[in-house]
Amino acid sequence: MSSAFRTVWWEAGQVCLIDQRLLPNETRIVRCAAVEDVAYAIRTMQIRGAPAIGCAAAYGMALAACSAAHDAVGDVARIYARLAEAKALLDAQRPTAVNLSWATRRVLERAQSLNDPSPHDVAQRVLEEAHAILAEDLAMCHAIGRHGVALIPPRGHVLTHCNAGGLATAGYGTALAPVRTAHEQGRPIHVYVDETRPFLQGARLTAWELIQERIPLTLITDNMAGYFMKRGDIDCVIVGADRIVANGDVANKIGTYSLAVLARAHRIPFYVAAPSSTIDCSLPNGDAIPIEERSSDEVTMLFGRRIAPEGVIAAHPAFDVTPADLVTAIITECGVIYPPFAGALQRSGPKRH
Amino acid sequence: MSSAFRTVWWEAGQVCLIDQRLLPNETRIVRCAAVEDVAYAIRTMQIRGAPAIGCAAAYGMALAACSAAHDAVGDVARIYARLAEAKALLDAQRPTAVNLSWATRRVLERAQSLNDPSPHDVAQRVLEEAHAILAEDLAMCHAIGRHGVALIPPRGHVLTHCNAGGLATAGYGTALAPVRTAHEQGRPIHVYVDETRPFLQGARLTAWELIQERIPLTLITDNMAGYFMKRGDIDCVIVGADRIVANGDVANKIGTYSLAVLARAHRIPFYVAAPSSTIDCSLPNGDAIPIEERSSDEVTMLFGRRIAPEGVIAAHPAFDVTPADLVTAIITECGVIYPPFAGALQRSGPKRH
Repeated sequence: MSSAFRTVWWEAGQVCLIDQRLLPNETRIVRCAAVEDVAYAIRTMQIRGAPAIGCAAAYGMALAACSAAHDAVGDVARIYARLAEAKALLDAQRPTAVNLSWATRRVLERAQSLNDPSPHDVAQRVLEEAHAILAEDLAMCHAIGRHGVALIPPRGHVLTHCNAGGLATAGYGTALAPVRTAHEQGRPIHVYVDETRPFLQGARLTAWELIQERIPLTLITDNMAGYFMKRGDIDCVIVGADRIVANGDVANKIGTYSLAVLARAHRIPFYVAAPSSTIDCSLPNGDAIPIEERSSDEVTMLFGRRIAPEGVIAAHPAFDVTPADLVTAIITECGVIYPPFAGALQRSGPKRH
Repeated sequence: MSSAFRTVWWEAGQVCLIDQRLLPNETRIVRCAAVEDVAYAIRTMQIRGAPAIGCAAAYGMALAACSAAHDAVGDVARIYARLAEAKALLDAQRPTAVNLSWATRRVLERAQSLNDPSPHDVAQRVLEEAHAILAEDLAMCHAIGRHGVALIPPRGHVLTHCNAGGLATAGYGTALAPVRTAHEQGRPIHVYVDETRPFLQGARLTAWELIQERIPLTLITDNMAGYFMKRGDIDCVIVGADRIVANGDVANKIGTYSLAVLARAHRIPFYVAAPSSTIDCSLPNGDAIPIEERSSDEVTMLFGRRIAPEGVIAAHPAFDVTPADLVTAIITECGVIYPPFAGALQRSGPKRH
């Protein structure tokens, strides 16, 4: 079963994406004609989800390459310089998810590996690599589904946080991949969806995906997770990741850490599902992961209305770090990794320089 | 220092209250002329907070008594019957907070204790008792502040959930009473305020109260609590309660249980502040507390707009139960109770029949 929507794609020389800030009330396509448009889409979370912003950034590099090839007839060095600038711009938009800089680096390195190319060759190579990243991401998600489905207990009550679904990836999802696979196999499945304040990715995006797939769900506010765990309603937790570092510490959407603590207290398995592009063995542990701090207004305003009095400042760390010792297993496209994670992560992670 | 607002009061034969659903954007006074209006205000959460709805219900009984005294000239038995009906109506509006039925029972019993009264005597007695409940609640809150302030560590970083402030009581608050007292004493204080989905009592009401008192605060989404605890930013948690039963189990706003688990995992003291009217020793433990299930729409709609797709059903347990073994101490107007709670709760709780 393929997704009923596309998250990000290349069409007529533009990068197209669904504006995820408007879902589920409106399905609007954003068309990016320049790398700056892609950077804006990433920063403002028109597109979000670590693998998805990696794909979008790769296509952003393709926009930069096409533009540079057009401007700099014959001067390949200038194209490489423009690509390096585009990479710096894109990488700076969101610091926590490592897939972003992984994708831009991969694209740039492949472009630079060409032997005496024309400007057109470079632009073509960048676009091909972006297409490859998208296709591989989709394939990795399906593999995560195949590996992860075996971890879902028979009753199939899965709690998830944020959106680690098709909208967070090239399609099919990471945390939602085992859920989708179980559903396709006709196994019982019921998803408890954390609404995930402040952006409500769970209520808006995960619920939207599950409704489309006719997968049963119960929406809950984030503060209900402990209540349902204590009642015995949750069989396992599966979340995505924005960065997994060498020792297995996991950065993911704010609230993931609280969930992991609650899962441990209730002896519920806590799984992290992510493609290998999320693994960053250059950092020894989670303390080294940069945590993006976003605007207070994104917490205090909803639909343009204040939910807190004037003068109130809200904290807005967009992510938190779950220590490896709270993670039962990590599901990647290569298989299921159990603690201790370090060795397997070194083998699973992408090569970095 | 007294509060800059009144939560509920009697004026010109009507029960007046601030519509807490509209705060902080609008301060609208609701005037209830009949007991049915008070019942509506309680059910729809125009007024909320266990002690506050106890006060409102007592005044609702006064409305019923005045109306009955007017209708039933000379027939005191009919007045008592009308009061019993009013009590049943009010008690049925919200099942979890015990202060509601405690207040209506107290009022009814005092009215019935009169010796050969006139209808006017009964109505007068009911109103006097409602005034007494309000005055006592305010005094109890101040006493909770005096007892609780000693529990706040020197740095004064307190995390609270929902609104257990002046708006949840006759004034001054329960969980916020030690905070207010510390601030009045010039001690350092900084409140981390859980926004408290779905009704956002923290963002809308607690933040509003703290801003008025110029007490420093940081608003957080509910799912950030673990993050700030792990960083060492939280010195203690103080919450209110809707019912405390014989063994010390505590029913309070949904999310309280998750906070208590997180506090334990981070070795942070977890305090419950409540007047003795919240204690219900007729129930042996928290399993017996009725948990109100409210409408899915209250989760999926915000400001009249859907935040989840059509067809999504949200769970909405309005409360959860925190087991006594996660509670460091209970603060009442009588003092601070440490585990084991059972004996002290029996002595502190109101007499029930």
